[in-house]
Amino acid sequence: MDFRSDNVAGAAPDILQAVIDANSGTVTSYGNDPYSDRVEKRLGEIFEKPVKAFAVATGTACNALALSALTPSYGAILCHEEAHIHLDECGAPELFTGGAKLVPIHGPGGKLTAQGVRDVLEQTLTGDPHRVQPAALSITQATEAGTCYRPAEIAALAEIARGRQMKVHMDGARFANAVAHLGVAPAEITWKAGVDVLSFGATKNGALGAEIVVFFDTDLAESFVVRRKRGGQLLSKMRFVSAQLEAYLKGDRWLELARHANAMATRLSQGLQHLPQASLLHPVEANEIFVRLPQGVLAGLRDAGFSFYDWTDAAPGTIRLVLAFNTDPAHVEAFIQTAGRLAAEAA
Amino acid sequence: MDFRSDNVAGAAPDILQAVIDANSGTVTSYGNDPYSDRVEKRLGEIFEKPVKAFAVATGTACNALALSALTPSYGAILCHEEAHIHLDECGAPELFTGGAKLVPIHGPGGKLTAQGVRDVLEQTLTGDPHRVQPAALSITQATEAGTCYRPAEIAALAEIARGRQMKVHMDGARFANAVAHLGVAPAEITWKAGVDVLSFGATKNGALGAEIVVFFDTDLAESFVVRRKRGGQLLSKMRFVSAQLEAYLKGDRWLELARHANAMATRLSQGLQHLPQASLLHPVEANEIFVRLPQGVLAGLRDAGFSFYDWTDAAPGTIRLVLAFNTDPAHVEAFIQTAGRLAAEAA
Amino acid sequence: MDFRSDNVAGAAPDILQAVIDANSGTVTSYGNDPYSDRVEKRLGEIFEKPVKAFAVATGTACNALALSALTPSYGAILCHEEAHIHLDECGAPELFTGGAKLVPIHGPGGKLTAQGVRDVLEQTLTGDPHRVQPAALSITQATEAGTCYRPAEIAALAEIARGRQMKVHMDGARFANAVAHLGVAPAEITWKAGVDVLSFGATKNGALGAEIVVFFDTDLAESFVVRRKRGGQLLSKMRFVSAQLEAYLKGDRWLELARHANAMATRLSQGLQHLPQASLLHPVEANEIFVRLPQGVLAGLRDAGFSFYDWTDAAPGTIRLVLAFNTDPAHVEAFIQTAGRLAAEAA
Amino acid sequence: MDFRSDNVAGAAPDILQAVIDANSGTVTSYGNDPYSDRVEKRLGEIFEKPVKAFAVATGTACNALALSALTPSYGAILCHEEAHIHLDECGAPELFTGGAKLVPIHGPGGKLTAQGVRDVLEQTLTGDPHRVQPAALSITQATEAGTCYRPAEIAALAEIARGRQMKVHMDGARFANAVAHLGVAPAEITWKAGVDVLSFGATKNGALGAEIVVFFDTDLAESFVVRRKRGGQLLSKMRFVSAQLEAYLKGDRWLELARHANAMATRLSQGLQHLPQASLLHPVEANEIFVRLPQGVLAGLRDAGFSFYDWTDAAPGTIRLVLAFNTDPAHVEAFIQTAGRLAAEAA
Repeated sequence: MDFRSDNVAGAAPDILQAVIDANSGTVTSYGNDPYSDRVEKRLGEIFEKPVKAFAVATGTACNALALSALTPSYGAILCHEEAHIHLDECGAPELFTGGAKLVPIHGPGGKLTAQGVRDVLEQTLTGDPHRVQPAALSITQATEAGTCYRPAEIAALAEIARGRQMKVHMDGARFANAVAHLGVAPAEITWKAGVDVLSFGATKNGALGAEIVVFFDTDLAESFVVRRKRGGQLLSKMRFVSAQLEAYLKGDRWLELARHANAMATRLSQGLQHLPQASLLHPVEANEIFVRLPQGVLAGLRDAGFSFYDWTDAAPGTIRLVLAFNTDPAHVEAFIQTAGRLAAEAA
Repeated sequence: MDFRSDNVAGAAPDILQAVIDANSGTVTSYGNDPYSDRVEKRLGEIFEKPVKAFAVATGTACNALALSALTPSYGAILCHEEAHIHLDECGAPELFTGGAKLVPIHGPGGKLTAQGVRDVLEQTLTGDPHRVQPAALSITQATEAGTCYRPAEIAALAEIARGRQMKVHMDGARFANAVAHLGVAPAEITWKAGVDVLSFGATKNGALGAEIVVFFDTDLAESFVVRRKRGGQLLSKMRFVSAQLEAYLKGDRWLELARHANAMATRLSQGLQHLPQASLLHPVEANEIFVRLPQGVLAGLRDAGFSFYDWTDAAPGTIRLVLAFNTDPAHVEAFIQTAGRLAAEAA
Repeated sequence: MDFRSDNVAGAAPDILQAVIDANSGTVTSYGNDPYSDRVEKRLGEIFEKPVKAFAVATGTACNALALSALTPSYGAILCHEEAHIHLDECGAPELFTGGAKLVPIHGPGGKLTAQGVRDVLEQTLTGDPHRVQPAALSITQATEAGTCYRPAEIAALAEIARGRQMKVHMDGARFANAVAHLGVAPAEITWKAGVDVLSFGATKNGALGAEIVVFFDTDLAESFVVRRKRGGQLLSKMRFVSAQLEAYLKGDRWLELARHANAMATRLSQGLQHLPQASLLHPVEANEIFVRLPQGVLAGLRDAGFSFYDWTDAAPGTIRLVLAFNTDPAHVEAFIQTAGRLAAEAA
Repeated sequence: MDFRSDNVAGAAPDILQAVIDANSGTVTSYGNDPYSDRVEKRLGEIFEKPVKAFAVATGTACNALALSALTPSYGAILCHEEAHIHLDECGAPELFTGGAKLVPIHGPGGKLTAQGVRDVLEQTLTGDPHRVQPAALSITQATEAGTCYRPAEIAALAEIARGRQMKVHMDGARFANAVAHLGVAPAEITWKAGVDVLSFGATKNGALGAEIVVFFDTDLAESFVVRRKRGGQLLSKMRFVSAQLEAYLKGDRWLELARHANAMATRLSQGLQHLPQASLLHPVEANEIFVRLPQGVLAGLRDAGFSFYDWTDAAPGTIRLVLAFNTDPAHVEAFIQTAGRLAAEAA
């Protein structure tokens, strides 16, 4: 009963089947294959706009390469202080951009606020040539805190960025979970709200290893085929990545997978918030729960066979629970019951 | 009947099956999984020495990341003028090393010569602080010309490198083909001959997408776990890559696959060299053939449904034929017969 | 009457004279000159320890190059949130280090606290391979706030760094002002307190353009001759830079120049702090004053011919006043009198 | 009697005087000074076109920064195989461009040929995304071999570059010597011939340390103020560099200095070419002579007090003689006489 991460889950059966089916005959290598073409076209349908799209193998590369197309080496990338690109990619954005500077900004619930971004631009990054130049704003959707930006929030942030000729990037490692939660058209929280480039994740939501950089501003994609190669992300047998994406994006499959993960998270959080000793750090709007529980309860849960991570960036006793596209509802119920029993004993 | 590249082939059935089998239960993410551990151990057996090994998704990343562990940013990496790292990785080594300089060296048959390397070190890279500092020597085995270094050749090159405190890298995108051709123990052409780090390829030889950096000098691996993450090559669901490698390295499977490709290349080259108009550029010692044929013959072959690449780096009329782990012998025979017929008509 | 910066001042007459005197005969270029040798030896005397020293042309290069010798590209450099390397060098440290990450830390009076550094190391940079690895700590002495670290404060910070195998850098753009203020031996606030490398400035304190990287841990200097060249800081006619440094470091000249600047700052701050509307942001321990005054007073001062910068990183009405090695005491008195008069009128 | 380099010479008296004169009063720092403004204007006169110009401290930085404005990190910079940027700047162009690749091209007399450049573009750098993308062509004027490109030669090279949307850079460390030799208007061998950016040197020709990047295509200069800062080349007391350039460019002073050096080189080469044992490697068209002499003659010259460098990139017995703006004609005559005598004795 493993709630450590959506990365500990395997692959959805239909996505794996697509990989199996792709293993037939010879196919042009290095991304010039019909699978990749079809994925790009399908993304155009999903986003109601022609896009340029480039599959890669990891989320870190997906973000770092996308950012490298948006900023010169002397640029600043504004992001939330808990952003994955800032905290958990080991300097990959710095590597791929040639040394651009990430500027972390505080905001409640894992979300940037218009005021927070404006303050940095007006007080620190005014254009002074002794300082890095504002180049990009990166928004994570769903956020690292398991919350979701509303369309108007994104639009407000993007408008500030535009005012300084900055580009807007969205880290969508859990984009599907956000769309599923918000119930909006994908276009509403991306290009219609001012997003130029999306790092669209599939791995956490049922793929084996497949992410794709989606350019809504296709001019920005001009040299991306070269950047991807140089970045070590142009797979020779790309069909095996693109086939995953094709299966993922077929109909509503990507949303269906996310809806399950989200529903599990909702159920689990509802089951926990009744406990008097439990406190949720953030509203649960995707597939992650950040909750504080007494140490005794946590120890008891672990003894009972549940796995989860301590969230060391927050107060002691805080854990993260992540629900996956294939989480067994029985595991969720078992967690709720066990936690309830342990909490009652502790009270 | 596709002889364009070993990358146009799909995956070997048993390797694909290993991926399918790996899709079971939850597994710790980001490389801390039992598949990865077993692969590292198996490599220790194959090379008769404990190694540190780090799986990645592409050959370009495998080379560029390996080199980044061997050279400071002000270093020079000596390599053959036709080396993949120099010509076909779009500057990835420059990116991952922070701007190290590749120094291309001429040598017949795609192979570096001791004299060629010595000349560069004695005449150009003498240690003068106005010039980059010799840091690494990169040897491709099998070479880009489809030839193989003998153990003594590697040892001679490595000894020169040692004399200048340089590290030795081997680009083994087709390492299996070289071992299969030479019939030597893997250790004989790697660490016993002075190689510090091997980029061990599997993708071209039957994997979906799996390469692995193998450190014989394990001290050099110290920070590699961080470099891999920063380079965007730490797959979250790494089990799906490591499972491929595990199947690939099971028993002699990797050599069996390579032997087939090599045998096909031998057969095809033997069939072609009888033709008076054909001239082989290099001895065929792996799974690649570089051959010059009259344009009419080439056109006829294409009309007959054969695919292959013009080799524009050589004289007009030169083509490259690559044989794969799963090349159908009937396709090879058909090529020989068709070429023979066309050549006879042209004569 | 210009209090904008110590960079608006010219050069001290004896330092300029040294440049004039150096213009005699031919001299080996690129730093292999007797001036440079003598400077290195003199620094060994000043610091009571043999050092390796490398002159450069700018303070930004002096810091960025020094840091590049202390951190791998995947490293983190901890510094104060107001550090020049973080805020005012436009990403030069990121460029020269190949993309290392600066981690800004809050602390009162422009000074890092042991607790602040410890918190970052224990909570954020724990060694997790998904995050950059702590590599260096950079301390500014005198600080950007015009304050000075005491020897024990530096030692405490350096000890924390050592505990994580981090190197310690000191940005000494105003090192002379700190030594002059503290009245300690230079060794006491550098290597004896745990500093590995000092960026020792001369430009702000009377040189035309001359800074020097001083390695106390001389092993770290191993490749620095190459780094300096690659960084575009190996002047061909280096004698003209080294001659400045030689004059600067002759006897106590460097301290004498700093003492004047410091004395001017002390006098000016004393003159201002009597005013009921004035509030000093920080104790004045070097040659900079940060003071808040009513806007009317500021406007009046400007009308009266005084120049100074608004300090936009602080509250409106805050200005920075910088005193130089050659500030005319009469200008200081005039400032005090004018401010006093304007403040009285405003009251 | 020192013929090692034009960098062993000191500074011209009037240029030094300009530095002395600049040491007066306070002046806005970081390049926003009237000296810098006047230099930019004066360059506009000299080149008969408004330019953007940015002073820096070293030739290596001047080249590397200029190139960084012309190429993305995945770009290729084509240059002569003996180009200073390729051989003698220790990877500075790679550092400042974020890892662009220098592509060395052979050509007689230190000069690129149209055919040589065309071959590389047509055979190797065809635009294939697996290879770096042609971005800039760098021409050295006068060349590293002491020869000069004629206007039509530059125009022919630049036209090829334009055909591939490449930018054209000129390394003008000895630009004055070339203009003096050719007797053309500076515009004729720069923007009128297709050059976008010139690294205009002064240090070798009489300055203490002053070079300037001159943008003829001023759009390319857009972010250069930021690049210069980030590159550690924005001197705080820039007036002392710009004052040198102002004196250097006053009237024909820069050409006058170069004419002297050139005349000395002409005289010396004429004196040597009479010797039967002497062979000049290249026509002498600037201030450098590459000559092969018997080892006994070279030893005798050194015994007689002459200094010069062995030119190890060429055959044994080859030396380089560099004449400076202030070379004493008597030293030249003495060299000729001594060499003549030694050669006669050896014959």
